[in-house]
Order: sequence, then structure tokens, then C-alpha cells
Amino acid sequence: QHPPARSAGIVGAPFSKGQSRGGVEDGPERIRAAGLQRGLQELGCAVKDYGNLTFEDMSRDEPLGLLKSVRAVGAANQKLSQAVRAVKEDGHTAVVLGGDHSLAIGSIHGHSAAVGELSVVWVDAHADINTPLTTCTGNIHGQPVSYLLHELRSKVPVLPNFSWLKPCVSAADVVFIGLRDVDPAEHYILKMLGVKTFSMSEVDQLGVARVMEETCDYLSARGKKPIHLSYDIDAIDPSVAPATGTPVVGGLTYREGVYITEHLCQTGLLSAVDLVEVNPLRGQTEEDVRSTVSTAIDLLLGCFGRVREGNHLPDYRLPKP
Amino acid sequence: QHPPARSAGIVGAPFSKGQSRGGVEDGPERIRAAGLQRGLQELGCAVKDYGNLTFEDMSRDEPLGLLKSVRAVGAANQKLSQAVRAVKEDGHTAVVLGGDHSLAIGSIHGHSAAVGELSVVWVDAHADINTPLTTCTGNIHGQPVSYLLHELRSKVPVLPNFSWLKPCVSAADVVFIGLRDVDPAEHYILKMLGVKTFSMSEVDQLGVARVMEETCDYLSARGKKPIHLSYDIDAIDPSVAPATGTPVVGGLTYREGVYITEHLCQTGLLSAVDLVEVNPLRGQTEEDVRSTVSTAIDLLLGCFGRVREGNHLPDYRLPKP
Amino acid sequence: QHPPARSAGIVGAPFSKGQSRGGVEDGPERIRAAGLQRGLQELGCAVKDYGNLTFEDMSRDEPLGLLKSVRAVGAANQKLSQAVRAVKEDGHTAVVLGGDHSLAIGSIHGHSAAVGELSVVWVDAHADINTPLTTCTGNIHGQPVSYLLHELRSKVPVLPNFSWLKPCVSAADVVFIGLRDVDPAEHYILKMLGVKTFSMSEVDQLGVARVMEETCDYLSARGKKPIHLSYDIDAIDPSVAPATGTPVVGGLTYREGVYITEHLCQTGLLSAVDLVEVNPLRGQTEEDVRSTVSTAIDLLLGCFGRVREGNHLPDYRLPKP
Ligand SMILES: [Mn+2]
Ligand SMILES: [Mn+2]
Ligand SMILES: [Mn+2]
Ligand SMILES: [Mn+2]
Ligand SMILES: [Mn+2]
Ligand SMILES: [Mn+2]
Repeated sequence: QHPPARSAGIVGAPFSKGQSRGGVEDGPERIRAAGLQRGLQELGCAVKDYGNLTFEDMSRDEPLGLLKSVRAVGAANQKLSQAVRAVKEDGHTAVVLGGDHSLAIGSIHGHSAAVGELSVVWVDAHADINTPLTTCTGNIHGQPVSYLLHELRSKVPVLPNFSWLKPCVSAADVVFIGLRDVDPAEHYILKMLGVKTFSMSEVDQLGVARVMEETCDYLSARGKKPIHLSYDIDAIDPSVAPATGTPVVGGLTYREGVYITEHLCQTGLLSAVDLVEVNPLRGQTEEDVRSTVSTAIDLLLGCFGRVREGNHLPDYRLPKP
Repeated sequence: QHPPARSAGIVGAPFSKGQSRGGVEDGPERIRAAGLQRGLQELGCAVKDYGNLTFEDMSRDEPLGLLKSVRAVGAANQKLSQAVRAVKEDGHTAVVLGGDHSLAIGSIHGHSAAVGELSVVWVDAHADINTPLTTCTGNIHGQPVSYLLHELRSKVPVLPNFSWLKPCVSAADVVFIGLRDVDPAEHYILKMLGVKTFSMSEVDQLGVARVMEETCDYLSARGKKPIHLSYDIDAIDPSVAPATGTPVVGGLTYREGVYITEHLCQTGLLSAVDLVEVNPLRGQTEEDVRSTVSTAIDLLLGCFGRVREGNHLPDYRLPKP
Repeated sequence: QHPPARSAGIVGAPFSKGQSRGGVEDGPERIRAAGLQRGLQELGCAVKDYGNLTFEDMSRDEPLGLLKSVRAVGAANQKLSQAVRAVKEDGHTAVVLGGDHSLAIGSIHGHSAAVGELSVVWVDAHADINTPLTTCTGNIHGQPVSYLLHELRSKVPVLPNFSWLKPCVSAADVVFIGLRDVDPAEHYILKMLGVKTFSMSEVDQLGVARVMEETCDYLSARGKKPIHLSYDIDAIDPSVAPATGTPVVGGLTYREGVYITEHLCQTGLLSAVDLVEVNPLRGQTEEDVRSTVSTAIDLLLGCFGRVREGNHLPDYRLPKP
């Protein structure tokens, strides 16, 4: 019933130029310091930590219209794509610690480069599917999905430092969970493409268990592809995970958030996970940060087989008096 | 799927004499200041703000037994009844911003005077169905339902400044949602009349989605009458909406609260909504007030078609490079 | 539909040596002071308060290996067992106010001594089923279930001051609800014995209403035995009940916690209830303690027939003008 122990390949992506708030680049270290590796090992999971990527400063990176830091985001994601590809070629389940959500561009691209077609489960308060032309903020962390979808190729202009990127995901292979702050243009795109979404309305209506059943049924109907889970911590309610850049009221409970990972883990198809938008500078108190980071860890452990009924290693034997 | 844009007619009722705590008369201005009108307009909804009603001080308004401020409550509700009737005759969906819940007497009466028989959905921690003879507090905000029901006519004495009021709602046309603090007399009345109630026990048992399905099935079985939604902010859990006079533990979550409005909106029958008992003086911090007011706004926007999956106007077109 | 009024026999067990944090011995007085007796009487329930047990200090109580305070725990539980037996023989529903959860040993033993075979519903973040040989902390409040189960007799060594205790519960008569922090050894034992558990994963998956239905179906399939409810306040989420020694994130909501008691009450089989691990010294603020104690009271009142739709006494009559 419980999935076999796996090996995790951790890549830190301390990248923050997909948005404008400082602090999210400290996510990887905070998550590591809170005990990710030990937690994974207690589950019987081997861990290889590939360390943090380093990203060069761009000497010239003027906005392109509204679009901010295009060149930096392009270069960083190219690097991340190569790193994730290597992790997958080494045989690990990839764990990408963000950093802001723009890094899903490289993470998903690299994952797909290594294993081929993917299912993508995008857990987020936001759809992150603006194009460079519909964005109101210019922040690329609100756009990664549009860069990745075959169907939106003609809607996304050629951008500097993005020539390496070819769309690699079909809209029908994506499921969104947790939406509650979707721009009109994003809503138009989601409807136009017929993307499967479970907004918080549907989570309320169906319950998280049925949402996950339907998610997995929907995805597997197109073939059992490796799953890329891209988990934005802002999917979780701000009362639990406040240390993030764009919190939105009415989010997933801690329990729903963890349930999603438990369920995806049990498919046996989970092949890479991004955990993004943990911003230790955004909490109002240290407890806010602790709670956010601790939730991030619990989500990741859920991806690797931890279940709330408890776990024990296969060779456990009970002592007698 | 999404209901057509409507027009909202907003009436402020800064009335607080149905209870004893100062501050609830500031509800209308706080809710307006937090952006109600702009939010409605972004949904494509036309808005007419009728402003705030003004209520005269009563020079003599001695208690009648326990009953407090009877004459003031009677006169204020007569004025509100006329105002709501005018809003409905102007063709708007009425939005009444309270003020305390005693104003549902005038709001429902005026609504019914304009459109005839109503369905009433009463979302509240409390049943507000004490009669002037069963009340333990003397506050009329705990009694409005008893004044409105045909079936309780013989149980409610003739009161000064209430001669304009004739009961106009049948007990079988009322559904209560969110109950968790019901006086023994109220419980007796609810059982005696066989009123449909979904206390928090039933919300726990059935889930909010089935509660709303059953609510609408129950009401529409008696004919698709215009719906009057009377929403007491204290229905929502005090952790979310603390700035209210009589908070009760164990309330609706923000998500459940919003779901109720989304569902009622989609019936196409929502004809008037009261949003009452927001009391900016009752929060312990400014954040408490902000959260309460912001929840009130989200409930109202849900009544006018906002959904969490996102909205876009019918004429939206996607820009291309 | 509502169960008949009962009589409650309250025993305070201000015992804290089953764990290492001071304060939990103040639980009984805090719960009483917050109005337990009045609340029960308002439900039409007769109350006999047997007062607090007193426990002698052990002059010599050295650890046995890791195991702490064995002699004190053994003696206290012998005394409690006799007290609970007497309460049952007096015909009351027993209410044991803890104190730490080690006292379930005496409470369940005494209950069983009076009425015979029991069903046990154990609501807790923890399984409390370590044996003296598997415990990592040495705290006996993490072990009471192993002392009580027939099936674990050979796994539990003979301990000083425990010679009075014979296992009295079958593993198949126990249901756990709320688990989310289970040690590997405990998980091994639960699986080995095939114990029925509803961890928080199952609560998420099934919802609390179906959990309670399945709990009662499961237990009654083995005969309608008297139910012993052993309720650890740490089953409830720390955001609601923080004043406890070993809080764990992701717990039951207040509403779920109360629903469990409402449902068990309506079986008519509830024969004894422990309410344990309220520790007034563990909250960070007085509000933390108030919220924890108030939740404890609401759980106990739910056990005696309080429901959220309201209650009224059978002889209530409505006043007329
Ligand atoms: Mn995102
Ligand atoms: Mn987001
Ligand atoms: Mn109320
Ligand atoms: Mn009310
Ligand atoms: Mn316990
Ligand atoms: Mn516990």
C-alpha cells in the first residue's frame, strides 16, 4: 500500500527575479535547515543534495514593456532545466526548492527533456498562465504556464534568453488545484483551452479526496505519464503559510495540502516536485516563517511516502520482555 | 453558466438599536470604503448607491418589559421597508448594509411588498426567532424572524411603531444555515413550526455543497420565489470575522461562507441580500476589522457572480504578439 | 431523537506523572471552573461531582530503564480504577477529568470492572500504544493502550504497582480517531493487530460524519457494548486547543471534535468519557488556555446531549401575549 522508498535529488533554486519581493531566494536554505533531508531519510528515502544553483547578475536587463527581468529569468531557467534533467538522468525523484514560481519553466522543461511527456499538477492560488502580453504586473512568476504550453506558442512572443525553450506540455495534461485569484485574461485562457481546474469552489463542493481522485483519473485517461507536481506554497491558506509574496484568503487547509501530496505519492508516478514561493521575509513573526517552512517540509515528505497513520520500515521487529 | 451581470441597489442602514453594543452603525461606511462598488463593477454589475438612511432619535423609548428601543426599531424598519421597496421597484437586486439584524424586519417586509412571496435564506449563528415574550436579552436583533412569520402572529404582541408591519413570510419558505447558538425557546419554536434548519451539525454532516443543494431543492419545491438572503456576519467563524457583537465559536469557514453566496447567485433567483452585524468597534485589532469587512465584501461579491475560478467579461479578447 | 437526560458522575484525576510537563494536574479544576456542572444541568442532566482524587508521592520511584514514574502511575491508576468503578456502580455516566492520558489505564480498567466488555473510542493525535520496551520517551501517557490490550500481554513486562492490572480490552473493540503522530513501533503494532484507525488522512478522505458512521458500525458489529470515549484534547488542532503538552499540527477542527461527541452521544451507549491533557501552563496566552478549556467543556457537553441546533427541555411551553 505504501510506495517503496525512493531516492530524492534536491536542487536549490534561490531565484527571485520572477517577482519583485526580496526574500524568496532564501527559501531553499530555510527549507533545508528545517530538516528536509533527515525527514526524507527517516522514511527510508536516499537523498542526494545537488546544492544550490548560482545565477549570474545580468548587467543589462531592462524591462520589455511591462515585462521585468526577462533575461535573468531566461538564463536562470536554462540553468535549472539542465540541472533537473541531470537529476532525472541520475534516477532520482527531483525536488526543486524555490525561489519564485517562474522557475517552473526550467524545472518542467528539464524534467520533460529527460523523461518525455508529462502530467503537470499545479497547486496554487493563482493560475500563473498570463502571457507576456496579458500580464498586469510584468512579473514572470505569474506567467510560467503560458511559456510551457504547446497551445499558447503563438500567444507568447520570442523573448531574450528564452531561445532554448520550446513548449513541452499539452494543456490537456495539466490540472490546476486551489485557484482563487485568477485574472480575467487567465480565466479566458483556461476556458479557451478547456484546462481542467479545481478552484477552491470545486474543492469546497467535491472535497479534496474527490478532487484528487478526479485529478488522477483525468490525467491517467491520457496515459500514465510521469507527474510533475508544481506546488506554490500560496495554495495553502495564509493562516498556515503566511510567509509568501502573494497570499490569498480562503486557501487549502494544512490537511488538504498534505492530502494532495499523500495521494499523488501513492500513484507511484510522481517524478518531480517544485516547492516554491516560501519567502522568509514576508512573515510578520518568526512563528509565521516557521509555520510556512514546516508546512513546506510536510508537503515534501508527503510526496515521498509519509502518511499520517504512521510509517515503519519493512524490517521492524517488536521487542519482547 | 455564470449568471448575467445585474444591477445592485445599495442601501445603508446604520442602525444599532436592535442590540446594545455601539459600533455596528458604522458597518455601511466601512463596507463601502473597502471597495464594494468597485468590486461589483469589475463583475460587470451596474451599481446605484442610495446612500445611508437616517434615523431619528426617539425622545421617549422606554423599555417595554425587557424589550429595548421598540419605538426606534419600529420606526427605522418602516423607513427601511420603504427604501427596499423602492430599490426593488427600480429593478435592482437590493443590497442592505447593516447595522444590526433587527433591520431584516424592514428589509424583508419591503422586499415582499415589492415582489410578493419570498424564499428567505437566513445565514446566522443564531435563529433570531425569539418573540418579545421569550427574549432573555430584550434585544430585537434576536427577534426579527418572529415578527415576520405568519405562523407566529398570535405569539407577538402589538408593539408601538410596528402597526405598519404585517407578517409576510411563511415558515415553510425559510431556511436557516449556520445555527449553533439557539435558545431553548427558539429551538421549541423551530421544532413546533417544522422550520428547515441546517445547524453546524448538519453542515459538518452533509458538507456545505449538499446543504446548499438541499436548501435550493427545498425552497424551489414550493415554487421558484425570489430569494431574500439575510446574512449575519456572525455565521462566519470568529477566527475570520471577529468584529461582530455576538461571535460564536465553531462557525462557517470563509470558504463555506462564500460558497453559500456563489450557489445562491447561480440560482438566478437572488433578489435581495442583507449583510449585517459587522461592528468595527468589536474587533481587538485593526486586522480583525479588516478581515471581517473584507469577508463581508467577498460574500456580497459572491452574490453578484464572482466565482473563485475567475471571471472575465463576455467581450474579452486575447492579445497576440 | 435526542437522548434522554442522564446523570454524570465527575471524577477529577489531577495526575501528571505519565509525562514530564507540569501543569496538566490543574486540568480538572480549570474545567470545573469554566462551568461544566452548570452546562450539564442546563441540559437536564443530573450531576454528582466526586471531587478530585489525591495521589501520594512515591518516596522511591526510580526509572525502570527509560520508563519514568512507574510506581506513581501504577498506584494512581489503581485508585482511579476503583473510583470509576464506583461511579459506574452508582449508575452514572463517568466523566474523568485529567490529568495526563496515562490515567486511561485506570479509567478503562475500572469501567470494565463495573460493566464488562467495552468498546473504546480513542480520539487522539497519538496512538498511545507504545509498550514499555518500544517507548522512546519513557512517558507512560504514550503507552496506556498497550497495558490494556489482551493481545499485547506478552509484550508488556510486569511492572511495580501494576499487579492489580489485567488487560481488559480486545484490539478489535478499539477505534482510533485523529492520529497524525504515530511512532514506527506504534504503527507496526497497529498493523500487526489490525486495529481500526481513522488517521487524519481518513478524516480528510471520508469526512468526520462518515468516520463516525463507520466507527459505530464497526464497533456495533461486535455487539452493542458500552462505549468508553477516551478524548485527548490534543486530537483537536493546536489553533483551537493549544494548551496541551504535545500539540501536533493538522488536527481535528473544533466542529469535527464536537461532532464526534454528538454522534457518540446519540448511540445511547456512551458509558464513560475521559477528557485529558488539558494543560493550563502550556498555552502562550490566557486566551489559549480559555479556548482549550472551553473546547474541553463543549466536548463533554456534546457527550451529554447538547446539539448545535439547540435543545429545550421536554416541558417547555411558549408564552403568549
Ligand atoms: Mn505560483
Ligand atoms: Mn501563487
Ligand atoms: Mn447572529
Ligand atoms: Mn442575526
Ligand atoms: Mn493521548
Ligand atoms: Mn495525544
